[in-house]
Formats: sequence, structure tokens, C-alpha cells
Amino acid sequence: MIDIIFIAGMAIFFVSGIYFYFVNKKAFNSALLICLITLISYILMWHGSLITISSAGEPIFWSRWLFYIGSCTLLMFEISKYKKIKNLDSIEVIFLTAIVMFTGFFAAWNITNVKWIYFAISSIAYIILLAKILSARKGVSGWINFYIYFGWTIFPVVFILAPSGIGILNSEISNLFYLILDILTKIVFSVQLIYKKRKESIA
Amino acid sequence: MIDIIFIAGMAIFFVSGIYFYFVNKKAFNSALLICLITLISYILMWHGSLITISSAGEPIFWSRWLFYIGSCTLLMFEISKYKKIKNLDSIEVIFLTAIVMFTGFFAAWNITNVKWIYFAISSIAYIILLAKILSARKGVSGWINFYIYFGWTIFPVVFILAPSGIGILNSEISNLFYLILDILTKIVFSVQLIYKKRKESIA
Amino acid sequence: MIDIIFIAGMAIFFVSGIYFYFVNKKAFNSALLICLITLISYILMWHGSLITISSAGEPIFWSRWLFYIGSCTLLMFEISKYKKIKNLDSIEVIFLTAIVMFTGFFAAWNITNVKWIYFAISSIAYIILLAKILSARKGVSGWINFYIYFGWTIFPVVFILAPSGIGILNSEISNLFYLILDILTKIVFSVQLIYKKRKESIA
Repeated sequence: MIDIIFIAGMAIFFVSGIYFYFVNKKAFNSALLICLITLISYILMWHGSLITISSAGEPIFWSRWLFYIGSCTLLMFEISKYKKIKNLDSIEVIFLTAIVMFTGFFAAWNITNVKWIYFAISSIAYIILLAKILSARKGVSGWINFYIYFGWTIFPVVFILAPSGIGILNSEISNLFYLILDILTKIVFSVQLIYKKRKESIA
Repeated sequence: MIDIIFIAGMAIFFVSGIYFYFVNKKAFNSALLICLITLISYILMWHGSLITISSAGEPIFWSRWLFYIGSCTLLMFEISKYKKIKNLDSIEVIFLTAIVMFTGFFAAWNITNVKWIYFAISSIAYIILLAKILSARKGVSGWINFYIYFGWTIFPVVFILAPSGIGILNSEISNLFYLILDILTKIVFSVQLIYKKRKESIA
Repeated sequence: MIDIIFIAGMAIFFVSGIYFYFVNKKAFNSALLICLITLISYILMWHGSLITISSAGEPIFWSRWLFYIGSCTLLMFEISKYKKIKNLDSIEVIFLTAIVMFTGFFAAWNITNVKWIYFAISSIAYIILLAKILSARKGVSGWINFYIYFGWTIFPVVFILAPSGIGILNSEISNLFYLILDILTKIVFSVQLIYKKRKESIA
């Protein structure tokens, strides 16, 4: 069952990568890069050697969080460009994103209670990040905040409920949630970003 | 025998590093950085603890591909600057290079047939990269394309023939080929780039 | 005892992070990022699974050097901005810093005599780095050189005396020294940098 989720993820991000390659040929193609990185991440989870086993015997696919360092910093680069955040502040936002995902990896990888310390630092870095991102250029780019609230912020909620956290959800359900969130925050978001940018460049 | 190849690699990149330090003191010294990174890579292969053993019993030095993430993104940075590729496109090219080498690492590290999936993604990313690089500023920087065709593109060919692929070549011969390609694409290329740049700045 | 040093490090960098968050809200907050990265590094050393045991039976916390890749490149980014080093030279300086710390990691991780080769390359990269940094904009930014001489340069001295080197100092004393150096080069330095920048912007 969990294999089907990962194979679905591979197929979806492969096809989306092809789509973004052709639809976005002229501009900086972050969507293509994000699809490639996520595709590799799903292959690695499907092949499944880089896991930790939770105390309840469920596999935790911690490699996911390391790949988010690549894909989510690219997303944040696009978001901070669109929100017209200044260059140096963008670097800060990108570093914060990397710290959020890197501590997320440690929280997933570690099965002792120390994981909650990593989770806490990840959350602090995320809140600082949100404070920088959400308020910027609200009028025009407010639609992005929806993806932050109902996309990005659900990830740590799933993390807590999944075997990586208190284990209310099993590994299959939580990886299914992650897949849906990956599609929302990476593919759906990128499609909307491309069309919003085009609309703006015409107007 | 394989030790001699790695020691030769260490010596060549050490001496070349000294050469580039003195010959290129004023400009951005990517050649020096590339030599340092490749030197470290050869020390690690010589010391030889980070290997996978192929089904035919040959060692696969997968760490090489992780170091190419550093050295080849620097090379691509120089190439895209010289080819006057725009800033954002340069970022895309550099990310694609990193994805090519990172999936190359997974393809070398993995000894099951899944490695061919990684190899396929690496190849796709490489072809997208080529399409961006080869066509740009052909008149003045066409000489760079020679290094791409007869340098960069031979790497995956060796990969397929080596123990990492179908194993027609043994580990020694394939690492000798890699050494020759490393010298061509990193040292010889950098020397030519430095002299071409000087000639242009005089003209 | 060594636990107390790491817990002290966690506490100091956590509190400093809060301080820098509030004191430096408007500018690029490298000090906050550096505190977060160093905090994670101390948690990982405290939790203590990523170590090598020296021939004398002392633990070597090699993960420290991997985190320095993040924190010290940020410090060098700030230093080279303040010293008004040109953009491309800054990239070189940042790469050299990463190479110094990365080879430092290999030198700490490796307990055979090969570690001295890594140490030598780390030192060479460091000397090239110093030559670029120390001479730049001496009049105004000479105070930074104090942190380089009595902060950065003491790190390799401790490395040699610690279990990672010849082992005259035990693991506790050497980690205490590293903590003091971390506080000096990261927290004290950042405080002074913030106030110097403010003074300059008023004048």
C-alpha cells in the first residue's frame, strides 16, 4: 500500500516536471527543478532503505526532509521574489527555510524524546519565517498566504500525528497526507504562480 | 594499481591548484577552488572507505559524484558567466548541474536495478542543461562546447561501461578514464578559459 | 562534565538567538541564523551519537565541523560585506571557508594519520582565505582582524592539542575551549558588528 503512494508520487512529479518544462520554457523554471528534486525524493522513499523504525514499529521516511531543503528553499526563493522581499531579507528567509527542514530531518530521524527539541527549534524558525513572509505585499500576493496556511503549516501537524510524532496516524495515512500536501504546495502553487505572473506582465 | 591512479590525481590537482593560485590571483579563482575540491575527492577515494562493491566484486567510488556537486556547479557558474547567460537562468543551470551529479551519486551508490532510474533522471536533467548551455553565445564561446561534448558527455558513457553500470570496464580502467576526463574538463578547460578571458579583456 | 559544556552551549546560543532576534529585527539577521545553526550543533553533540573514538579512547565530536560550514560561511559573508570585498571575491572567500570546515570535518572524523593530510589542506585553504580577508579595508575594519587572529586561528590550535590531533588536551577541556571560541567569534563578534554598523550609518 505504501509503495502505491510513493509510486503515485513519482508518477505525478514526473508528469508535472514534463508539463512545467514545456509551459515555462522562457522564465526561470523553479517548478521544473522542484519537480525533479521531489521525484528523486519519492524514488528514494519507494526504494526505502533510508528509514528509521518508530517504537510502534512503523517506518519513518526521514530522507523526505532533506530533499525539502532543496525544494522548499526554491519555493521560498520564488515566494520572496513575488512578494518583493529585499535581497538580503530573501537570503534570511531561504536560510530559515533550510533550518526548518534540516531540524525537521533530525526530529524525524531521532526516535528518542530529543526529537521534540528539534521539533521546537524547527517550529521557532518557522514562526520567524512566517512573520517575514505573511505580512509582505499583502494586497497583490495575499493568495500565496493560503498556500502557507493550508499547505506549509499542515506539514508539522501531520508530523506530530504521524509515527514521527505521537503516532495516531500510521505510516501509510501520513505519507498519503504528505503526498497531497506536496501536490498542493509544489504543483498547484507553481501553476497558479506562473499564471499570476503572466497576468501581471500583461497588465 | 588503483592507488596509483588516485595518488596521481592527488598530485596533479595539488600542483594545478598551486599553478592557478599564482596565475589567477586577481580574478575570481574558481580554478583554484575546483582543484581543492577535486584534491579532497581523490584523497577520499585513495583512502577508500566510502565505496560500494558491485555484483562482480569491483569497488564503486560513489563519493566522486558528491564532490562533483561542488566542482561542477563552479564550472557551470564560470561557463554560464562566459556564455553571458542571464542571472536567473544561471541559477537554473547550476541547480540542474547539482541534480545531475546528485542522481549520479545515487546511481553509483545503488547496486540494484533501481540505479537505472536514477541514471535516467540524471540524463534527463543533463539534456535539459545541455539545451540551455550549448546554444548560448555560440560565436565567441563555441570552443566551450568541445569540452561539453568530449568532456562532460563522456562521463555518463564511462559510468555505463564501468562497474557502476554494466561492468565491461573494471574499476581501474574506469577510474583512469575519469582521471583523464577530470584533467580535461577541470584543468585544461580552466587554463583555456583564463587565456580566452585575458585576450578578450585586451581586445 | 562534557554534557554540562554542551548544555551550556545550547543555553547560551538559545538566549543569544532571542537577543539577536529583537535587537536586529530590521537588518539581515545573520547573527540569529548563526545562533540557530550553532544551537542545533550543540544539541547534536549533547545527544552524542555522531562521534568517533580516538586511539586514546576519547570521543571526537566531528559533527561540529559540518555545522561550521553553515555558520562560518554566514560569518564570512558578513565580514566580506563589511570589508567591502567585491562580489566575486566574496564567493571565493565563502567557498574557501566551506572547504576549510569540510576538510576539518574529515580530519576530525578520520583517526588514521591520513587526517593530517586533510588538516594540511584545511590549513592551506585557511591561509589563502586569510590573505584575502586580513588586508582588505584595514583602516575601518581592522577590529575584525582581532577576531580572526584570536578567534578563528585558535580553532586549529585546539584541534591539534585535542583528541582529534595529538591528544594533549582531553575531550572535555577541548570542547570547553571550542565553546569559548564559539562565543567569541559568533556572539561577541556579532554584537560588535551590529554596533559598529549602526555607528557608521549615523556618522
